[in-house]
Parts: sequence; structure tokens; C-alpha cells
Amino acid sequence: LDKYMEDKSFVLQLGVWGLRGVSRVILANNPLSGGLILAALYWASPWQGLLGTIGILASTLTAVITGQDRAEVSGGLHGFNGMLVSLLMGVFSSAGDWYWWLLLPVCLGSATCVFLFSGLSSFLDRWDLPAAVFPFNIILILYLLCTGPDNPYFPHHSTTPPGALEPNATELIVIYGIPRGVGQIYACGDLGPALLILGAVFLYSPLLAVHALLGSAVGTLAGLSMAVRHESLYSGLSGFNGALGCMAVGGLFFTFSLRTHLFAIASAFFSAYADIALSNLMGTVGLPACSWAATLVATLMLLLTGSLAAYRIPIGQVRAP
Amino acid sequence: LDKYMEDKSFVLQLGVWGLRGVSRVILANNPLSGGLILAALYWASPWQGLLGTIGILASTLTAVITGQDRAEVSGGLHGFNGMLVSLLMGVFSSAGDWYWWLLLPVCLGSATCVFLFSGLSSFLDRWDLPAAVFPFNIILILYLLCTGPDNPYFPHHSTTPPGALEPNATELIVIYGIPRGVGQIYACGDLGPALLILGAVFLYSPLLAVHALLGSAVGTLAGLSMAVRHESLYSGLSGFNGALGCMAVGGLFFTFSLRTHLFAIASAFFSAYADIALSNLMGTVGLPACSWAATLVATLMLLLTGSLAAYRIPIGQVRAP
Amino acid sequence: LDKYMEDKSFVLQLGVWGLRGVSRVILANNPLSGGLILAALYWASPWQGLLGTIGILASTLTAVITGQDRAEVSGGLHGFNGMLVSLLMGVFSSAGDWYWWLLLPVCLGSATCVFLFSGLSSFLDRWDLPAAVFPFNIILILYLLCTGPDNPYFPHHSTTPPGALEPNATELIVIYGIPRGVGQIYACGDLGPALLILGAVFLYSPLLAVHALLGSAVGTLAGLSMAVRHESLYSGLSGFNGALGCMAVGGLFFTFSLRTHLFAIASAFFSAYADIALSNLMGTVGLPACSWAATLVATLMLLLTGSLAAYRIPIGQVRAP
Repeated sequence: LDKYMEDKSFVLQLGVWGLRGVSRVILANNPLSGGLILAALYWASPWQGLLGTIGILASTLTAVITGQDRAEVSGGLHGFNGMLVSLLMGVFSSAGDWYWWLLLPVCLGSATCVFLFSGLSSFLDRWDLPAAVFPFNIILILYLLCTGPDNPYFPHHSTTPPGALEPNATELIVIYGIPRGVGQIYACGDLGPALLILGAVFLYSPLLAVHALLGSAVGTLAGLSMAVRHESLYSGLSGFNGALGCMAVGGLFFTFSLRTHLFAIASAFFSAYADIALSNLMGTVGLPACSWAATLVATLMLLLTGSLAAYRIPIGQVRAP
Repeated sequence: LDKYMEDKSFVLQLGVWGLRGVSRVILANNPLSGGLILAALYWASPWQGLLGTIGILASTLTAVITGQDRAEVSGGLHGFNGMLVSLLMGVFSSAGDWYWWLLLPVCLGSATCVFLFSGLSSFLDRWDLPAAVFPFNIILILYLLCTGPDNPYFPHHSTTPPGALEPNATELIVIYGIPRGVGQIYACGDLGPALLILGAVFLYSPLLAVHALLGSAVGTLAGLSMAVRHESLYSGLSGFNGALGCMAVGGLFFTFSLRTHLFAIASAFFSAYADIALSNLMGTVGLPACSWAATLVATLMLLLTGSLAAYRIPIGQVRAP
Repeated sequence: LDKYMEDKSFVLQLGVWGLRGVSRVILANNPLSGGLILAALYWASPWQGLLGTIGILASTLTAVITGQDRAEVSGGLHGFNGMLVSLLMGVFSSAGDWYWWLLLPVCLGSATCVFLFSGLSSFLDRWDLPAAVFPFNIILILYLLCTGPDNPYFPHHSTTPPGALEPNATELIVIYGIPRGVGQIYACGDLGPALLILGAVFLYSPLLAVHALLGSAVGTLAGLSMAVRHESLYSGLSGFNGALGCMAVGGLFFTFSLRTHLFAIASAFFSAYADIALSNLMGTVGLPACSWAATLVATLMLLLTGSLAAYRIPIGQVRAP
């Protein structure tokens, strides 16, 4: 496929790099999965879909202009952070859809992701660690801090910590939160698009899809045990960190075995509890916890010595499955 | 001793590893000192003693199961973080003694320490730095954040920053805070058990005991100069970071000389002031400063170039004194 | 010059090392520029000038006593952090000028900078990164946290985040903030001394002076776009992070070319926005953002791969221009 692409025009190539980037968020690397996910985003909200598209194009183009490694660019590695930043900027903006001024921070933020990705990669390379979604988490926090709670140009919702409020709600409805947790990876809380995104993961690797659902369930369970708000459970926000933590260990960075599977569940629990802790901490200054928890836990798992390390796949080989 | 242990049953071995782990907290490595300290903890409060025992067993067993390096496990390196987490969870819990549900987070928290210890060791190994008590500090903060101020299942006291309140109290009584500072390393503020713990340190190395007292005195002095609350001085909470900082430099990681001794005092002052600063910072969100200050300062001292570096003992040799 | 200095007495040498240290803050390395800047500081406020002098002497002497590398000491590398700490302690102190007790934290803080500089250099050396002004930022934050908002011995002003308050002020006056931004690097907000400092930069390297002004203008522009308070724009506080970020990339760590120039402008924008974000974050606990933003962004730029990396000058050669 890559061979064939060489002959195509730059615009087509850019499209494929972008779609690969879209699928990178869920740790896949497949233009087809990327296309499905983008379709799900447009289905959930055309404005969000547009923002995501612009974010991925802005950051991929910045990577080309600043002369980043060509293999990395064509693998979509420079796109997915920009896309996540754009999507979340859209979600947190309280100016409503089709607020065109938002495109300014979206483009700048996405472009800055490339700088952070490149810098952090050099930094973490010493331990053979990936930069993962650290750039997205950093840029989003900086953006929200920079605009503040009542900025005249770019207003946004502030975040409330998931404290215990109404522990008497019905518990059964929470089960809908599990597939939504997979959708929340793309900040998309609707059931239909979330299932489509899950389908895209399944298309790339059924194993990854199983771990995504499992992780989301673990995250919801952890949320229940800590009595977080029920909208947070129902919307899938409690589940997506667990899902990411579970997928990273169970389907991406390690070869599959029963032992890796158990570590993946442990990782999901750790991610979910760490997410609640970070949400409480960052909620005191009105910030969301993004996916800090899952990113930090996955990084920790990659550093682990002992029986897990034997199954580890070197980063260089992970990138081209 | 180690040779003889090989023949014994696993349970006995586990006991010795655990006791070594207990003594690791005060930078010693001696089952006898560990036994004395554990006795002091049971003396101060049987519930706290039980929690500590469970914590150390949970984390040592997790280390065995996850296949950590055998020499590290038998040296007690995987036990002391779990023990500290359990003890502090008990101290901060406001549900009273013998609240059996607390054993759930105690076991989970202690087990997670092993993951963090292993991951951080790989990370810090590049600079020949030990993971020390970083895992304990991280897990405790995450636990307190996760349960929040008014969790229905695991309630806990919130922390108040050591701000100036009553600067007219009598100053003399503060001298009792110095030996208590050594006890506070194990979150134990009673004078008797604190003296027993000091005896255990003396048993392992008189030099270490002198530095512990000296560091605690320096910490109390720093607390006085900054006008912190007198209960904080009296209970030894101001002193224990100074004691740890002083012990690490004066008796563990560097060979002893007059110059190292002066650096140890400087380290104690720096730890104590940094502890006050961090307490003020983390107190704004209701968190304790744990032993972050001493851990960070000791790590910094190990990184130092210049005349101190000449006395440094490589980490591999420190572990078996 | 260095050859000739060898013969001189220790006091004279110390003076030259100190003046080099003064010029290090604006990324220069020239005793003459240092002298001019020190004169500017004495002109703005004799008390501040005295504090700066004491700070630089205290930290340089500590470096000599603790046996730091001689080439580093004579290059002034151990002086500039101590100087900045002293100056900022003076600015934040609310006890007025000529409050002699302040000399105690000034000397201790400056001396501690040497420890941090040495430790951080060892840490960052793995990536060929400089410790830059990280020690200053850390020590100042610790000092402000340690003394707290209403310390009886060392009272200080608390900081307010640069939130939007009066967006109807006249915009033209803001242009005076641009040269002041260069002065704010030394915490000096008066126009005359700021121009003298700019002259000292010009003396060392006209290129650096151009980038300083450009960066300050970019920072002011970023401040305007985010509707920060006008006193913050007018006093140059919005500009100095942009100036530092721009100077580091445009005139110090990279050889000059059109591409480096564009990266320097991007770096200035990123520094300025990150400074607003950090000010908002740290303002919630009453702390200033110091020069964290510029320091972190410059460090990131040094880590960058791609077309910028080709122009990078290794740190060892940067130090002796």
C-alpha cells in the first residue's frame, strides 16, 4: 500500500497519513479504521468532525514543514495528538457549534503538538518509551489555563470533580456507560458513534476491541466503588481511562498471553483509580484530568521489570503492526 | 545468614524479608532492627502494627508473584513502601481503629507500590539513583485524592497547612519533638515507641542514629524559625523530613567524613524548609506533604557533582551493608 | 583575558566571575555587559542592586567551597541563579527596602541554588541540556511557599493571576511595555534601567538584542490577545518570558538563519502563552509564574528533532562564545 501511495499526489498521501493518525488514538494503525472513526465523529456532530479533520491536517502539515522524520509522518504519528486537542477544545468550548474563531486556537494548538511530540520523543527515547498522548494532555491543559474561566473570546465550561452526590440512583443503567467509554476516547458520548468506533477497533484487531470493552467495564466498576457521580459513569467518562490503560498493555505494547491479560486488567484498575484521583486534584482548579492517568500508567507498565518485561515488544516494532 | 535461610520454609523466609523491609524505611537492612521497630509499632497501637504487617506482606508477595529480581525481594526492597502506605492509610483514616474495610485499600495500595517501585527503578537507574520512598509518596497522595474529603466508604482526616497560629506558646517543650521526629518516620508520635525505634537504628549503626537525632533537631529548628504550629513541632512532624534527609547523606549513600557530615546538616536544613514549603502548597488542596521533601533532597544530593561526589557509594554496594 | 586573570588576587577574580554571572541571565557571557547591567540595577534601586550583588557573591562562593568545576565557576555559571533569587526575594518582600533580615534568606537561597544547579546539570546532561534558570525558579517558589502569605519575619506580596478586568483601557500605551519586558528579566520595571540593560545585551551581541525586543513584542501581543490586565502588559511582565524564549532560540543555542529566526518567533509565542497559562494556574495558590514558561519551552526546543536540530550548537561550545 505504501509503495502505491508514493506515486499519488501529495493531497491523497496527506489524507492517508491523516486517517492513519485518526486510528492511532485507539492504538491502531490502519487508514480504514481511521475512516470509520472519522465517519462516527461526523455522525455524532458535524462540527466536531470538522474540528478533528482540521486538527489532524494542521498538525500533519506542521510536521511536514518542520522536517520531521518522514516514516513517522506517514505513519500518522504526528496527527493524533493534534486531532485530540481540536476535539477537546470543541467539547469544552461554551460558545456553541460553528463558532469560527475557535479555529484559531485549534490550528495553533495542533501545530504546537508536533513540537511537543518531537521534544518529548527525544526525551523519552532513553528508556525506549513512546511520547504517546502526553502532548495532547499538556496542550489541552495549557489552553484551558490560558483562556481561563471567563475569557471574552474563547469561553469554556469549567470542570467539576466527580465527587459523591446522589448515591441513590439506579445502578443498572450504568451498563450503557461501558461502550460509551470507548467513544469517550474521542470525546464522543453518543451510543451509536461509540459502537461504530468500537467496530473500527474490532476491524483492526478483535483482541484490542475486547480489551477496550473490558477496560471500560473495569473503569466503570472502579467509579462505582468510589461513588462518583452517575452522569460521569453513564456518559462513559469513568471508563475511557480504564479502556486506554487496558488496551495499551493487553493489545499493543506486549505480546498476548494469560499473564499479559492479567497485567492488562491490573493496569485498567490502576488507570481508573488514578483517573479519579487526578480528577479530584485538577477539579480543584477547574481542570479536567484528560487521559493523564492512562498515559502515565501505560508508561509505568512499559518501565516495569520482572515477568512482564519478557513480553514487551520494542517500540520500533510496535509502530508497524 | 542468607545461606541458612535457603533451607527454611517459604513462610520463614517471607518473615525475614518482611523484617528487612521494615528496617529499610530507616535506611537500615537488618531483620533484628526490623523486629524491634515492628514491636514498637504494636506497642504504640496494635491496629497500626497489624496494618503495617499486612502491608509489608502484601507488597512482598506481589513482588514474588510478578517475578521481581530475587535478590531485591530478599533484601526487603519491595516491602518498605507497602508498609509505609498501610501505616499512613491507617493514620489518615477517620473511621477509627479496627475498621476492617480499610484492609481492601491497604492490600491494593501495597501491591501497587511494587509496580511503581519497579517502574521507577528502571527510570532512575540511568543516573544510578534509587527509587527510595517515591512509590509510597505517590500512592498515598493518589489514595487520599481518590477517596476525597468525604468518601462514604473510606473517610479520612484532611490536612491543615502548618501556618503560624499561636506564636506565644512555651518554647521549651519543643525539645520532646526531636526523638518523636524519628518515630514519625513510621507515623508514630508516641515518645516510648519512638525511643525504641531510635534504639533499633542505633543497633544497626550508631552513626545513623546520631544523624537521625541531629536531623530531627535541625528540622525542629527550621520549624521554629518559620513559626509553624506548635503541635506540629511537638509531635515531631517538623522533624522527620530533616531526620531522613540527614540520615540519607550522613550515614547511607556516602562514606563518613567531616565534609559529608557538613553536607548532611545542609541536607537536613534543606529538607526541613522544603517540607514546610510543600506542606503549605499541598495543604491548599488538603493533602499532606508525606516525605516528598526528604526524598527529593536526598535524590538531589546523589546527583551532586563536586567535592561531595567523591564520597559517594554506588547504589549496588549500598544495598548490602 | 582569562590568562591575565590568573595572576590577579582572588577577590578580583571573584568580581569578574560575578559580572560574568550577571550577564549570564540574558544569555550573554561578558564581564562588561554584566557591569552595565549591575549599574542599571543600582540605578533603578540601590537596595535591589545590593541584594543582587550579595546573591551573586554568595552563590559563587558556595560553588567554590563545595568544589564545583573550576571552568564553570569562572564562567559565571553558578552565579546567575543566585542573583535572580536574591532580586526576586527583594521584589516580593513587602517589608520595604533596607530590611536587613532579608539578607538571611537571600544568602541561604543563593547558596542552595548551587546545589540545585549541580544536581540538575547531572540529571539533564543525559540529553545535553543546560540547567538554565530551573534552580532559580524552584528556589523562589519554595521560598514563597515556605514563608507563606503572612509570615511574621518575611512577609511578601501575594500574586494575582493576570485575569481580564478592564478591557476598555487605551491600547497605545502598551508599546512602552516592550523595552520594559527586557528589564523585567532582572525584575526591574523602570524604563531607563531597562534601556540600559538592552544596551548591555546589544554590546554583547546585536542579534540577541533584536531577538529580545522581538520576543518582548510577541509576548505583549499574546497578552493583548488573551485580554490580560493592562498593568501586566505595561510593566513588561507579559513580555519577558517571550523575550527569553526568543533569545534562547534565536541567538544562543542555534546558529542564525532564516529558519532559526522563524522558530525563535514560534518559541516566543509559545513561551508567552504558556506563561499566561502558568500564571493562571499558580495564581490560584498565590504564586508567580517566574520564568518557568520560557525555561521549559527553551528546553523543549533543544530536544526537538527535525530541521531545527541541524542548527543546534552543542552545549559545551555554547558556553564560550
